[in-house]
Amino acid sequence: MNYKLLGKILGKIMILEGILMMAPLAISIIYKEYNKNVYSLGGVKNILAFAIPIVLLFIIGFALQFTKPQRKSLYQKEGFALVAMVWIVMTLFGAIPFVINRDIPNYIDACFEIMSGFTTTGASIIDDITLMSHSTLFWRSFSHWIGGMGILVFVLIFIPESKDGSAMHLLRAESPGPQVGKIVSKMRATARILYLIYLGMTVILASILMIGPLIDTNAALQATGIDYSGDKVFHALITAFGCAGTGGFGSIPNSLQYFTPFAQYTVSIALLLFGINFTMYYLILIGKIKDVFRSEEIKTYFSIIIAAVGLIFISLKLGGIIDSFAITQNYDTTEEAFRHSLFQVASILTTAGFSSTDYDVWPVLSKMVLVICMLMGAMAGSTAGGIKTSRIVIAVKGSYINIRKLINPRYVPKAKFEGKLLEEKTINDVFAFITMYAGVFVLAMLIISFDPVNGTTVIINSDAGAGREVTHGFFSNFSAVASCMSNIGPGFEAVGPYASFSGYNWFSTIILTLTMLIGRLEILPVFILFSPRTWKKI
Amino acid sequence: MNYKLLGKILGKIMILEGILMMAPLAISIIYKEYNKNVYSLGGVKNILAFAIPIVLLFIIGFALQFTKPQRKSLYQKEGFALVAMVWIVMTLFGAIPFVINRDIPNYIDACFEIMSGFTTTGASIIDDITLMSHSTLFWRSFSHWIGGMGILVFVLIFIPESKDGSAMHLLRAESPGPQVGKIVSKMRATARILYLIYLGMTVILASILMIGPLIDTNAALQATGIDYSGDKVFHALITAFGCAGTGGFGSIPNSLQYFTPFAQYTVSIALLLFGINFTMYYLILIGKIKDVFRSEEIKTYFSIIIAAVGLIFISLKLGGIIDSFAITQNYDTTEEAFRHSLFQVASILTTAGFSSTDYDVWPVLSKMVLVICMLMGAMAGSTAGGIKTSRIVIAVKGSYINIRKLINPRYVPKAKFEGKLLEEKTINDVFAFITMYAGVFVLAMLIISFDPVNGTTVIINSDAGAGREVTHGFFSNFSAVASCMSNIGPGFEAVGPYASFSGYNWFSTIILTLTMLIGRLEILPVFILFSPRTWKKI
Repeated sequence: MNYKLLGKILGKIMILEGILMMAPLAISIIYKEYNKNVYSLGGVKNILAFAIPIVLLFIIGFALQFTKPQRKSLYQKEGFALVAMVWIVMTLFGAIPFVINRDIPNYIDACFEIMSGFTTTGASIIDDITLMSHSTLFWRSFSHWIGGMGILVFVLIFIPESKDGSAMHLLRAESPGPQVGKIVSKMRATARILYLIYLGMTVILASILMIGPLIDTNAALQATGIDYSGDKVFHALITAFGCAGTGGFGSIPNSLQYFTPFAQYTVSIALLLFGINFTMYYLILIGKIKDVFRSEEIKTYFSIIIAAVGLIFISLKLGGIIDSFAITQNYDTTEEAFRHSLFQVASILTTAGFSSTDYDVWPVLSKMVLVICMLMGAMAGSTAGGIKTSRIVIAVKGSYINIRKLINPRYVPKAKFEGKLLEEKTINDVFAFITMYAGVFVLAMLIISFDPVNGTTVIINSDAGAGREVTHGFFSNFSAVASCMSNIGPGFEAVGPYASFSGYNWFSTIILTLTMLIGRLEILPVFILFSPRTWKKI
Repeated sequence: MNYKLLGKILGKIMILEGILMMAPLAISIIYKEYNKNVYSLGGVKNILAFAIPIVLLFIIGFALQFTKPQRKSLYQKEGFALVAMVWIVMTLFGAIPFVINRDIPNYIDACFEIMSGFTTTGASIIDDITLMSHSTLFWRSFSHWIGGMGILVFVLIFIPESKDGSAMHLLRAESPGPQVGKIVSKMRATARILYLIYLGMTVILASILMIGPLIDTNAALQATGIDYSGDKVFHALITAFGCAGTGGFGSIPNSLQYFTPFAQYTVSIALLLFGINFTMYYLILIGKIKDVFRSEEIKTYFSIIIAAVGLIFISLKLGGIIDSFAITQNYDTTEEAFRHSLFQVASILTTAGFSSTDYDVWPVLSKMVLVICMLMGAMAGSTAGGIKTSRIVIAVKGSYINIRKLINPRYVPKAKFEGKLLEEKTINDVFAFITMYAGVFVLAMLIISFDPVNGTTVIINSDAGAGREVTHGFFSNFSAVASCMSNIGPGFEAVGPYASFSGYNWFSTIILTLTMLIGRLEILPVFILFSPRTWKKI
């Protein structure tokens, strides 16, 4: 293990996190949150909440720069372990502000919340976000934006001494999807282009949200008693961060329920765009639009979207005919039913996890479609989580090849993916990934079944009515794990869109926090970090 | 396609089914069920219910023997397609009696019931089995026994012209598990030995059940109003068939709830024994007991049993402490809690699906353990369904190898399974199998989500209390598919141990019937049968 180099890179990341934390620090100064401290006992100033960890990060980060690594490259295992470590360190320090400003006084809960931010999950343990300070809301949503494209990809831009070999290991470990495509030959140039596209798209989205009508302030006022007519820039930024990182944290209660139809449509489309492999945008930039339309993954992605929106829309319109509603939630107009169908598919498939309505009372068919969207996720190379469209395509083709081989033992597979012959190794890796995904899934569900929260009743108040009783059972746990592993956010029933993860005890919270990381880094890096073999000398 | 040989073998199977159907015919004569016909309009005699299909089977079966196949061997694809066809033909004819004697007047439902029998699932669409005739009950339970060891393995004993190559294709297609082990070099000798062991164990079990106290007739009389003190041989036989095939159909209401503790313990142990790879018994017979204790799969199997029983027992005893009960079901004694824990694990893990109590009201932890048992199933080469213990072991080892390879790219896998080096192809096949299993699972769930039964409420009366309301939702569908694919029988909630599959409409019923077959034949044969490629000339 090249501890010194690991330490040095970790140090750089810590300095970076310190710099990034200056943004929420600025927010707390702008909003004069010197002492907006609802749980306060002694009146800790909110500015200190960010200043203290920033100083800590700088001191440790700079101290680590004095080490002199003898070897300037990383082995593959070191790359994987480093990636997992980076995310854990970012989380451990990123959680500190919430504890100091007492917005989330419990450190384990705070770690859950910020890990949920960095991994772009958007699952929250906060029951009432109206009690949160602006800087807290900003920091957790900003962490979506940071985590969306990957922390290390970001760092690649700033690490001069990292050789291309090491950088590739890092990129492979952190980038979602079965294959890592270098857009241009230079790794750092790749990272820079990706980040520029990402930044550009975020700026455009934020501008649109700032200009157009954002929140239906009357509806919000009636429901929450709070006037949200000010701070439009703040709310637009938060929403843009949540979209860009496909994270899902919001700034006002009940996610996007009180947002205008214009904003809901804008967010739907934005999410679907952020769920596309960013390589596609690069191809568009350099004028290779034909290649984009030829991409199998993008075709599959849009086919899935159309099918999912169609099925949910039909099931909502025919609710009670092809399915008996548990609670009747009849939308006033066809437009409304369509909007919510589109919005929820966009939100869940891209693994953002925003909600525009209480989809937990939707017909079973709609919920099943959403569960499938949860597991699949959007395209590889996007900011989304889940198994990824490309893996689904490869798994289907791989299964087909298996059957063909049995029908004709002399069959030589010629199946292609994205124009290239599908190698057996790629297929087997995908099968292995899905198996491990299922294994971790079942194991996490088993562990959180020990939680005393199981079997308790939760009261849900939503746009489908107040006082709905929900029992915390199998489907709650299933959707909690699916939601964390695929980095979505809310699930169903007791962890549905109008509930939170606060019911789980500290142990389950840690397990679910790890599950988010396992999902974000696509399983292997986390196992490698915690494997004793990694730390042995070879 | 060697249509003539396929036809000829199918014909033989039909003759065999005709012969086997004489057993329920005899039962209907013994019980003088000439006209015991509850739904009858015209008074069709029950004997005819079996006599008509027997005659049909004989006529078609013998007619098919006149074809003269030019090629006397089968290609692999023909073997796979044949196996799937055999099971479908057996089902199509095996369902006829239920329709004629009007015990199950709907032919699709009747097909579901007998497919559930042959595949040893034990899922039922019958709401009240007290209305069924003895011959109906006997035939569906006898079908467990027939299907348990495999219909074609049985036929192998009688096909003289089938060359060993073809026979191997058949055996591979029908035998559960990742590897097919020939016990002795001759295929037919293997089949004969397996069947003798199977027959011997069934006879021993039936004898024990006949001698010992079987049904708590007082409890049964109080609860159902029916006197079950007679017919002990009949009930013992039915139960023995259900155990041997790990099927799960019973002869009295509420499965084994009214059976004596002695019978419940006997059945638990018998089920666990029938869940063991039958090769082990052969090894014991020839004195190689050491090899049995050295088997990894058997060690894993018993570790899983101990862990599962332990977890459920603890969760039942601590119910309300580590988990809040939805409905409190406190068993009077520790013995009772232990007995039900053991019984349900034995029943679900071996995929029989008997129930001794309403496990649907158990704590979430217990249910989660049972769900895992459902998916895993027992050992390969037994009569059980599910993914199989050996595949679980191979998948875990394969994942470990994947991680090791990333830690050290020069790592050469040395992992062994059952003393032999684990080949990469075996691992990849297991990964592919689990992926396809998951794929079929999700697809089946999606299709049955269209059913109008979703969202309806079902009233459950069980030993945990009467009038419990259950909503047909995600968990019902999840467990219905898990139950059918793993050939278990009951699931949870609306298809729980005290409910039936009768709520599903005809389309879902067909899908679930196919799911049972896909599970029993381990996916590929069914796909090969329905693939157009299979029927093209190569």
